[in-house]
Amino acid sequence: MSLNTQVIYTKPPTGFPVVGETVKTSKSTIDLDAPLQKGDILLKNLVLSIDPYIRGCMRDPAIASYAPAFEYNSVLAGDTVAVVLKSDNPKFNQGDLVCGRTGLGYFEEYSHVKGTYADSNYVVRNDSKTNGLPLSYYVGILGMPGLTAYVGLNKYGRPQKGETLFVSAASGAVGQIVGQIGKTLGLYVVGSAGSDDKVEYLKELGFDGAFNYKTENIDSKLTELCPNGIDIYFDNVGGTMLEHALDHANNFGRIIGCGMISQYNTQGQYGIRNLIYVVSKRLSFDGFVVLDKENMAYEEEFIKTCTQWVLEGKVKYRETIVDGIENTPQAILDVFKGRNFGKQIVNVANL
Amino acid sequence: MSLNTQVIYTKPPTGFPVVGETVKTSKSTIDLDAPLQKGDILLKNLVLSIDPYIRGCMRDPAIASYAPAFEYNSVLAGDTVAVVLKSDNPKFNQGDLVCGRTGLGYFEEYSHVKGTYADSNYVVRNDSKTNGLPLSYYVGILGMPGLTAYVGLNKYGRPQKGETLFVSAASGAVGQIVGQIGKTLGLYVVGSAGSDDKVEYLKELGFDGAFNYKTENIDSKLTELCPNGIDIYFDNVGGTMLEHALDHANNFGRIIGCGMISQYNTQGQYGIRNLIYVVSKRLSFDGFVVLDKENMAYEEEFIKTCTQWVLEGKVKYRETIVDGIENTPQAILDVFKGRNFGKQIVNVANL
Repeated sequence: MSLNTQVIYTKPPTGFPVVGETVKTSKSTIDLDAPLQKGDILLKNLVLSIDPYIRGCMRDPAIASYAPAFEYNSVLAGDTVAVVLKSDNPKFNQGDLVCGRTGLGYFEEYSHVKGTYADSNYVVRNDSKTNGLPLSYYVGILGMPGLTAYVGLNKYGRPQKGETLFVSAASGAVGQIVGQIGKTLGLYVVGSAGSDDKVEYLKELGFDGAFNYKTENIDSKLTELCPNGIDIYFDNVGGTMLEHALDHANNFGRIIGCGMISQYNTQGQYGIRNLIYVVSKRLSFDGFVVLDKENMAYEEEFIKTCTQWVLEGKVKYRETIVDGIENTPQAILDVFKGRNFGKQIVNVANL
Repeated sequence: MSLNTQVIYTKPPTGFPVVGETVKTSKSTIDLDAPLQKGDILLKNLVLSIDPYIRGCMRDPAIASYAPAFEYNSVLAGDTVAVVLKSDNPKFNQGDLVCGRTGLGYFEEYSHVKGTYADSNYVVRNDSKTNGLPLSYYVGILGMPGLTAYVGLNKYGRPQKGETLFVSAASGAVGQIVGQIGKTLGLYVVGSAGSDDKVEYLKELGFDGAFNYKTENIDSKLTELCPNGIDIYFDNVGGTMLEHALDHANNFGRIIGCGMISQYNTQGQYGIRNLIYVVSKRLSFDGFVVLDKENMAYEEEFIKTCTQWVLEGKVKYRETIVDGIENTPQAILDVFKGRNFGKQIVNVANL
């Protein structure tokens, strides 16, 4: 029997997840030599992706939402990259690199995956064996966050060259890609982030303007950095930032509702007081979830395009990688506290 | 010289308009026999339309918005129906019925209109001479409120037969048409209004459900009357009603931002706390202004279609008509207090 450390979700937190309490690690065992049933695969998980949406899954299962609620006292699930140790499934070969889909890969060292589950929720991604890109990119810039940026900006933002794009959490897993795609489209791009380091990084990426929302006056900075107003706001945070963006929005502006991380861990949600601008400025405010079929339809096109961008150095991607599955609960909390810089990854094992 | 009573806007109110102070009537004189300059027309105003949007024009002119701010101490402007007394303009003949466009007709007994202004802002509508419909319909069901309902529901609501439409201020100038158009499209239609009389009227119009938002628990009534949730919310009021509608919205629901009358006369705007639903339910929330060129493009198609509906008795229209221009300031306040029933009209003179 081998040791199999797992990340366990126990119950919904009140406010922020509590490390060691609502999310913790637990040691179990697994027989790696046990024979597989037909269709099953045995995986060694290499990379775990820590994404803000998981907070929404840490809820009372009676509350419906787009992603199913996590089961209490069960292994946490999310995007993963793994290598196939053994397979009795024709879709997967030993040595294949696979991605566990958003919310559907397991946060543990080894996973024995049933055939029907593997067929539906795992996809082979062997490209990195030859293109030299980090495995983690397949749950980051080339994964769900990348596709989120691509679909959100193009489909809901309806960008026109020369327009002003403002993105919040701009150095985050999604934000940094939004801004860089914006630049490839000829937009004037401004971002907000929560530290001076992050702001510096945004400038390195070619953002036309960037500011630290924690230390600067948001309204003044938007006035200064978006002198022509905001045509597209890619909202990752909600709350007061959304209110400021509405203040600075131009007529016929587009608000892309991607996430509202500022609201995920609070009890009393912040009230947005200036929605009258949606009417008077004729704004469109579209929420979207990348996992919807009509958005996932862009996945292969996106991976191909974005891989090329990355290989050519046109688009960069910042990650915070922590080693060791036992650090996962803390990494989750860090994401909600904004302590990560770029995409938060947990490296469980090397290939 | 003839007496010419005018409605005068003096300055922006704090909160509700103050009758006799921020909006009042004033007696001036006009020489109806004076010769006209080339292009000019002389009008006798018959009908004034009292529409909620005018509150937005009662503001500090330094604040930009879709409709220009009213000038202090000037004649109030809005939708009007008038008859041409004299014309030196080839587009207008003596006896023509004309409509002064939204925000551009004058609230006074007689108007001497300059040629360039007349050319841009008045349109001949002689249909009622033959079809027998009231003149007031041309600033109501067949005018801006009607077009607002038609464009808003069809273009931004993207209605599909069998879906649930909820409309607030449902017995109002716009709302009653929204609901009736909804029924012609095969929607399940629910409306809210501010009195039991109004609720009764909505049921007479064929609404599938209606409730008095002042005396009923809004959440419970929406649960009861919209058992399949809300697919389309036509928002005329904003504030708490919008919040409730977001609570009850279905995935991929559409929120049509037409107006937010609950917020026009308050100082501290109400904060909407559940916008996370825009993301998690993938809602689209589109604001629009009917006066935009791309919406006005539907005007002739709409008038033709809707005139037919009205003549066939398929669509009804409730109005509150007060006689006498001197009652205009009170009629304006009544609209913001919700004391009108249906479209608020001031009858200045008969043809």
